Amino acid sequence: MEEMLSAYADAVRAKDVVAFVGLYTDDVRNFDLWSEWHYDGKDALRGMVAEWFGSLPDDEVVAVRFDDVRTQAGEDVAAVSAFTTFAAESPDGSELRSMNNRLTWVLRKDGDGAWKIAHEHTSAPAGDEGKVQLRR
Amino acid sequence: MEEMLSAYADAVRAKDVVAFVGLYTDDVRNFDLWSEWHYDGKDALRGMVAEWFGSLPDDEVVAVRFDDVRTQAGEDVAAVSAFTTFAAESPDGSELRSMNNRLTWVLRKDGDGAWKIAHEHTSAPAGDEGKVQLRR
Repeated sequence: MEEMLSAYADAVRAKDVVAFVGLYTDDVRNFDLWSEWHYDGKDALRGMVAEWFGSLPDDEVVAVRFDDVRTQAGEDVAAVSAFTTFAAESPDGSELRSMNNRLTWVLRKDGDGAWKIAHEHTSAPAGDEGKVQLRR
Repeated sequence: MEEMLSAYADAVRAKDVVAFVGLYTDDVRNFDLWSEWHYDGKDALRGMVAEWFGSLPDDEVVAVRFDDVRTQAGEDVAAVSAFTTFAAESPDGSELRSMNNRLTWVLRKDGDGAWKIAHEHTSAPAGDEGKVQLRR
């Protein structure tokens, strides 16, 4: 699963929508941290990701780090959970700001034997007055 | 997986900590909607659930309903995602209040061939001003 995590981080750093969406199954169900209860299918995910990458300033990149990764590796279904840090970096590599969230992936082996993300769930816990806490 | 969902709802309705915790593996990792970034292991989960059930008024029960359930069924690892409704009911069965969340389970087959929840992730999306939305 390490390759999947690296591929995700690489796609975000490159703001590469095609590479990003290529990690997911066509019927992916995404439970995202922000705004929507779910994104249903790869086209809905593509729209969300294109908007995200498009909203990033040209002179910033987003570095993704995964901590405390745990996997449940099965024959045909697998899962990953981790804590994720998204850090905005300036061109010289200094960190401008960052946030944390919690990630769960359910992966399925496709016909070619490659793993794809069939379900993604990201969130942060609700704290005082129901506000999401974005720092661990 | 239907039996697991029913068993979960039954344990919540009965406020039965032992039955509830019995659905999970010893090493379960729980990403809960509220307050904490994670609960690590069955003992931590038991503490959280005992507090939850203990906080419920004696004359109320919590009815749990799952909608739009999807499963990824593997040989030894499986997953479930769904939208959950928790409804507080008075003794005559009328609904007092309710909230929604999003549920992901990763299940693992234990030595006896029984499925247990190895990872649970519940959340609700963050909306305006970062407040969690508890109604779908």
